[in-house]
Amino acid sequence: MTDIERQGMSAKKAASVLMTAGTTVKNAALCAIAKALEDGEQEILEANEKDMALAKESGMRPALLDRLRLDSKRIRAMADGVREVAALRDPVGRVLSMEKRPNGLLIGRKTVPLGVIAIIYEARPNVTVDAAVLCLKAGNAVILRGGKEAFYSNNALTNIMRRAIREAGLPEDCVSLVQDTSRQSVNDILSLTGYVDVLIPRGGAGLIRHVVENAKVPVIQTGVGNCHVYMEKTADLDMAASIIYNAKCSRPSVCNAAETLLVDEDIAEAFLPKAKALLDQKNTELRGCDKTRAILGESVVPATEEDYYTEFGDYILAVKVVSGLDEAIAHINKYGSSHSEAIVTENYTAAQRFLDEIDAAAVYVNASTRFTDGGEFGMGAEIGISTQKMHARGPMGLEQLTTTKFIIYGNGQVRV
Amino acid sequence: MTDIERQGMSAKKAASVLMTAGTTVKNAALCAIAKALEDGEQEILEANEKDMALAKESGMRPALLDRLRLDSKRIRAMADGVREVAALRDPVGRVLSMEKRPNGLLIGRKTVPLGVIAIIYEARPNVTVDAAVLCLKAGNAVILRGGKEAFYSNNALTNIMRRAIREAGLPEDCVSLVQDTSRQSVNDILSLTGYVDVLIPRGGAGLIRHVVENAKVPVIQTGVGNCHVYMEKTADLDMAASIIYNAKCSRPSVCNAAETLLVDEDIAEAFLPKAKALLDQKNTELRGCDKTRAILGESVVPATEEDYYTEFGDYILAVKVVSGLDEAIAHINKYGSSHSEAIVTENYTAAQRFLDEIDAAAVYVNASTRFTDGGEFGMGAEIGISTQKMHARGPMGLEQLTTTKFIIYGNGQVRV
Repeated sequence: MTDIERQGMSAKKAASVLMTAGTTVKNAALCAIAKALEDGEQEILEANEKDMALAKESGMRPALLDRLRLDSKRIRAMADGVREVAALRDPVGRVLSMEKRPNGLLIGRKTVPLGVIAIIYEARPNVTVDAAVLCLKAGNAVILRGGKEAFYSNNALTNIMRRAIREAGLPEDCVSLVQDTSRQSVNDILSLTGYVDVLIPRGGAGLIRHVVENAKVPVIQTGVGNCHVYMEKTADLDMAASIIYNAKCSRPSVCNAAETLLVDEDIAEAFLPKAKALLDQKNTELRGCDKTRAILGESVVPATEEDYYTEFGDYILAVKVVSGLDEAIAHINKYGSSHSEAIVTENYTAAQRFLDEIDAAAVYVNASTRFTDGGEFGMGAEIGISTQKMHARGPMGLEQLTTTKFIIYGNGQVRV
Repeated sequence: MTDIERQGMSAKKAASVLMTAGTTVKNAALCAIAKALEDGEQEILEANEKDMALAKESGMRPALLDRLRLDSKRIRAMADGVREVAALRDPVGRVLSMEKRPNGLLIGRKTVPLGVIAIIYEARPNVTVDAAVLCLKAGNAVILRGGKEAFYSNNALTNIMRRAIREAGLPEDCVSLVQDTSRQSVNDILSLTGYVDVLIPRGGAGLIRHVVENAKVPVIQTGVGNCHVYMEKTADLDMAASIIYNAKCSRPSVCNAAETLLVDEDIAEAFLPKAKALLDQKNTELRGCDKTRAILGESVVPATEEDYYTEFGDYILAVKVVSGLDEAIAHINKYGSSHSEAIVTENYTAAQRFLDEIDAAAVYVNASTRFTDGGEFGMGAEIGISTQKMHARGPMGLEQLTTTKFIIYGNGQVRV
């Protein structure tokens, strides 16, 4: 038996205890984790310094260094986040429906934990805590496999959580960290059938594709967001400009940021300069079709076919002038990643057709794509945004970390 | 582009039309299919005769020959089944919840089709029709890959359905049959990422394992049922005997039939002879532990460790005397396949603990495991019984062939 199989088995054993743990015990463990994180600040900061020193040595980019860095404020924010999860309603044990059948059987559907969840993620050490506590609250054991850049930080955080969980009376193996951070360890996790009920990869498109194509365990695909905003010809132009500016520029690195602007040809001349004036505030690079360049001039880079498929994750926006709603819908369903798509319009039928015909996790009328988020949707914290159709689609909160079982009360019924 | 990729692309195109098709159109197509099946009886029977002749030549077992055989009565039953699906409520387009957020966004969750569903199945040609119409009603295109034994029958049925669908005004590619019945064609389907949204294998344990381990597309695992009935010490012995007789003998070949009987040691001596008297009516072979054999005698075959893992699918039952509830739960969670599990008891706490601690799709108190079925659960027809935890667990009806999307109505909201 390999190390990772042993870890899978320990997690499964812990999950069987956690499966029937009451809300009070789980919340006590979460509160203990929050306090332990605050009390363990020194231990965490020392570990994080080791990671930071190695990362600087290896020449990590400043933006990534910043994501890796922990300080007092970030540790307090983590602890507060844990307390927020403790305050959320327990998603386990709800009977969603219960019905008496003609033969007298009382058949109900009850929410129960998934079991063991594995999470593969990259640089940010706060994911270690966020993911662990969401899984724990939903009654699942979690196997964490973080990036090697955050190795010492992730270990410090995990050890602190494990001690707190044990002291609260639950098995410490509810949370564990894979010690091997080689590429091979990802593949080992993909093959942990019999131990891992669901695997959630969080990271770049390359990681996610590798996981989806090679996993033998069930996977929930997250995160790739090639989102569009389409300005229909009846759009309020001020609203339209403010929405594309927000969708592109409020946080360009995240998955719900817009990557392509589609504009109806009837309003292109009036709208594009208005939008550009706002986008210029952040020096947004525009990559446009011929019609866009005819209106906005040569400063607009010519867009390639590839640009329309790209999640830039930066102050870059592809722009295309379209002939109307049909072309906009066809474009989005062809190039999009089924994450978040928006139309700006004052036309009722256009709005309803867009909502019906766009095949995506979240479809908006007259609002920014940036709202696709567990907190904004009122679900509380989230573990990621699913871009697949099975099990969960869109932001995944606690509810999406559970499954159901049928419970049946009889009085001797046999099937005829 | 290979044949199967072309088929995937055609199905995807059909699915995009079907996605927004109304209930009236879909039901008209279903009624047209029902009528076309009845009208096409001669065509179906001729094709089936070819399959039967080839099967007899190749020495197929009589039980399998019977599953392959079609006649007037079975064709009428198929057509009736299609009309029953037409009568079910459309699972698509329901808004499950809709809520106003503090910022004025109106956020709802709406049921939508999954897209393209692929189904890999074995001998019975009626699955061709059952699966196709369930997928169609839920707004999904379906790619069918049946066994080579039913090649001619499946083609006749598919051609009839395609004609009826086209005449009803929907794309005929909503339903298509893979023409290559080699093992390689299974592997081709497993790799149809970008075209297939969900793959459902229906068949033996070997097929299902192969699919789960090698699929790059999302899979819903179905069917393997190693089910238990546990007689707790307070059980009503007459009820207990009638339940194990029903669970084992009413239809031993199906996945919700019981394979192992667990008996509390306190009632073993009183109960086992009573159960055996009933099971003997079907000449059920018992494979028991030492304690069972001490009570029932040498006619009981000694049970091996392997027997407790086995889905016999026949008049064979493993029997084990256990020390009580804890051992019964541990046994089931170790050897079971998380399908359907039952306890017979008059003790309140034992019943509730069994419901809580058994990790299975359906958990019963005082009823036969044989009820795990879409019809019996009031869901209407089903496409299979999921034994995995993601997306769907237990019988899968129309609702389980849909996913959701978030629809958001705004009036200019941007994220701050």
